[in-house]
Amino acid sequence: MSTSFSDTICAISTPAGVGGIAVIRVSGPGAPEIVNRIWKGKPVTDMLSHTAHLGEILDNGALLDQAVVTIFRAPKSFTGEDVMEIAVHGSKYVQRRLLQLLVDNGCRLAEAGEFTRRAFANGKMDLAQAEAVADVIASNSKAAHQLAAQQMKGTYSARLNQLHDKLLELASLLELELDFSEEDVEFASRKQLRSIACEVHDEVTRMYKSFSAGAAIKEGIPVAIVGPTNAGKSSLLNLLLGEDRAIVSDIHGTTRDTIDGLLNIGDYQFRIIDTAGLRDTSDPIEAIGIDRSRRALDHAAIAILILDASQPLPATLPVSISDDTPLILLLNKTDLLDESIAESRQTTLSATLNSLPTEIPSTLNSVATSISERLDALSTKFADLLKHCHPRLIDPRIIPFSVKTNLGLNTLQTTLVDIADTLRGNADEDTIIVTNLRHAENLKAASAATQAILDGLDANLPGDLIAQDLRATIHHLSAITGTITTPAILSTIFSRFCIGK
Amino acid sequence: MSTSFSDTICAISTPAGVGGIAVIRVSGPGAPEIVNRIWKGKPVTDMLSHTAHLGEILDNGALLDQAVVTIFRAPKSFTGEDVMEIAVHGSKYVQRRLLQLLVDNGCRLAEAGEFTRRAFANGKMDLAQAEAVADVIASNSKAAHQLAAQQMKGTYSARLNQLHDKLLELASLLELELDFSEEDVEFASRKQLRSIACEVHDEVTRMYKSFSAGAAIKEGIPVAIVGPTNAGKSSLLNLLLGEDRAIVSDIHGTTRDTIDGLLNIGDYQFRIIDTAGLRDTSDPIEAIGIDRSRRALDHAAIAILILDASQPLPATLPVSISDDTPLILLLNKTDLLDESIAESRQTTLSATLNSLPTEIPSTLNSVATSISERLDALSTKFADLLKHCHPRLIDPRIIPFSVKTNLGLNTLQTTLVDIADTLRGNADEDTIIVTNLRHAENLKAASAATQAILDGLDANLPGDLIAQDLRATIHHLSAITGTITTPAILSTIFSRFCIGK
Repeated sequence: MSTSFSDTICAISTPAGVGGIAVIRVSGPGAPEIVNRIWKGKPVTDMLSHTAHLGEILDNGALLDQAVVTIFRAPKSFTGEDVMEIAVHGSKYVQRRLLQLLVDNGCRLAEAGEFTRRAFANGKMDLAQAEAVADVIASNSKAAHQLAAQQMKGTYSARLNQLHDKLLELASLLELELDFSEEDVEFASRKQLRSIACEVHDEVTRMYKSFSAGAAIKEGIPVAIVGPTNAGKSSLLNLLLGEDRAIVSDIHGTTRDTIDGLLNIGDYQFRIIDTAGLRDTSDPIEAIGIDRSRRALDHAAIAILILDASQPLPATLPVSISDDTPLILLLNKTDLLDESIAESRQTTLSATLNSLPTEIPSTLNSVATSISERLDALSTKFADLLKHCHPRLIDPRIIPFSVKTNLGLNTLQTTLVDIADTLRGNADEDTIIVTNLRHAENLKAASAATQAILDGLDANLPGDLIAQDLRATIHHLSAITGTITTPAILSTIFSRFCIGK
Repeated sequence: MSTSFSDTICAISTPAGVGGIAVIRVSGPGAPEIVNRIWKGKPVTDMLSHTAHLGEILDNGALLDQAVVTIFRAPKSFTGEDVMEIAVHGSKYVQRRLLQLLVDNGCRLAEAGEFTRRAFANGKMDLAQAEAVADVIASNSKAAHQLAAQQMKGTYSARLNQLHDKLLELASLLELELDFSEEDVEFASRKQLRSIACEVHDEVTRMYKSFSAGAAIKEGIPVAIVGPTNAGKSSLLNLLLGEDRAIVSDIHGTTRDTIDGLLNIGDYQFRIIDTAGLRDTSDPIEAIGIDRSRRALDHAAIAILILDASQPLPATLPVSISDDTPLILLLNKTDLLDESIAESRQTTLSATLNSLPTEIPSTLNSVATSISERLDALSTKFADLLKHCHPRLIDPRIIPFSVKTNLGLNTLQTTLVDIADTLRGNADEDTIIVTNLRHAENLKAASAATQAILDGLDANLPGDLIAQDLRATIHHLSAITGTITTPAILSTIFSRFCIGK
């Protein structure tokens, strides 16, 4: 691919605002000449690639600012074009004025992402890598950053290219079958075909399914706080966020809107969502809020159910939680629990949990075993607390809590991180997790197309028909990296498979 | 001066926030080695000064980000030390993490201004230039930027150094007088002494006096809008700022606090200050507001007096304005003026102005002549309007206005810029305008000290006593550039003048 851009673009590349220095980036065939027109110092034409030079930016002959110009000559630059980076003092006036001077001398203001688009167009990176640049910049947690950096580095693209190669192998086997269709080599070939198609299908399906976890890690893992009114949901939100985010009062039904806030713990960013308390209400606004609580719960990756341990526990849990959603049960207001009444509460609690054998306990058990090892380290102190408050319960996801004294806060944070680790999968750095909706949609389509190949093979359909699904699979996978996007190229590959053969 | 810093500092140099790229700067003797520890790419030790290199920043072996490292080796760098600039993607996470990695590997987080402080300590710039860096970064208008850029470039320091040289000449003449005091060469020498002292005195006094204009240009030129209640002051503020800044109503006394906003016109930034309407009031809060109006007027560089032209004009102007403060008189609400009643108003207006011969007209005339030439170009349309509304008035600083129809708005803006030009002095680029309070205080002290020298010469005091004031003058001037700050150096220069001689 060669450069097809004749114009030169410029933009402020550093964050908006005032700072020690700001960098204005200029890219395009006219970059050196344009910068030279406003430059007092070593002539730009004499500068070697990858060198930095101190000089002055002139505004109609007068000094605008001292500047360091760094030059990257095509094709060894970010965009593959001649690139000049001008570092000036980060005043708003200087930044604005320098952009104006560049425009006056022949540059065009770059559109959003245009430098990266040129890098893609000039073959400096593929589409998935280009998209990852934006994700790297937007990432707010270590986990989100790692996924984006992995994609930017090309690990993800490399994996897709491996799958792509397998599909081409499939295509050549199909061709072989067509060439020798009279000669009874079909059987062996079909078995091999199926094996490859199955492998690709499993991989794209796994990648597609990783999207819900990937999106959660990228955007902030949604954690819904649900429970009856006045159990302490808004107080918990405020405690977790360390700010006075939601209005707290003793009045039942204080919170109506769903309110959220972002929270970083460990490698992850969580989006903590406070919801309206669940109860029967005649207040129409509160009823809308309760409906929103249920929807927030449906979209949550983690649910925190908070109950008031100082009150008689409800006979049934006030909300149904999906088996797929990891649940943390907080027994709040332990500070109000008097030792003398603690025992009677625990009896009630056990009864509550036992009355719901199909729903809650199964969820609790399945997730509990998966994280029990990690919690072992915390067990000594935690076991003491547990024993004191709830001697008969040993499930560590049931956390005695007090918003008032912060009892259980560390355990809650650790538990959130543990669950997030499980969402991300094992610590294997090479596991691909998809974070981009466009990719997920292409992978979903590729998964369906490879399923169709498998079905076609099972039904012993002729190669021509199977080739259609193979073509679709290749189209969807290559759309992700952008390596092959035009129908013309696909046509060339599949010219031998035309229906009319 | 040689480097006395053994530690290596780091900081994010670009504005806070998220952007395409961010630059982390590292300076100090350990910079190359520290960066090399987290760097995958060409070894830093092999990099030539002023070259840029693409590579990867590693976070405990894993990719943190792709980066471009530019190296500036001592002493050819901003600080005079080994400096490495690391350009990474501008995500908050990457910026934070990279700083942490640098600290983990031996850097210290830089304090505010510490890079510039090292540049000063290593003789890369003098103190006035170092201070100007901060002013360049903070500048919000062309005029403020030009003053700061001129100072950063060293024009100002050069002028101070010239004065410094003259003072040393004065010192040598005084020495000469002491050496030959028996031989009657005193008379010629004293005349020469006086001439030099007079020249220095005039220059430092002029520079000191430029501070009020310099500070106004740097911080935003304060423009007070004053006038009776309900004349349209708040509406004018909102019109100038283009936003709904102050609450506007028909009720007299709506505005009580002084409210201001920044406005850029042409090369200047103005700070437009709306004040409480001037009237006798029994409302204590309003009375405080009116008191603040008068104080705002005292500190204003320009006053806009706004009157309601549709109402009978007051017999006297409602506020006394200093002769030094340029005044713009806005006759607002001209949209309400019916042609049939216009004439009677004008009669009243003339009477008003004529009744105050000592104050307003003199101010108006003095400023009017200085800007009349510039306003000639606008005169055709303006003269028509003036003739129509006020056939007997020709002073262009009296502007028929309408906040409702924007009549006179362009004229007002042009007039503000004209007055600002006058404040800045003539367009001569070499005119020094002082913008820094510390400098102004030193110049004021130098002005007093040179006056004392002149007084001492007039009183024919002995050289020993005059030397004391000369010493003070040199101390204050050199404190500005920081070239000579230690009493020890001053002592050396003046060793021959010690009192005990």
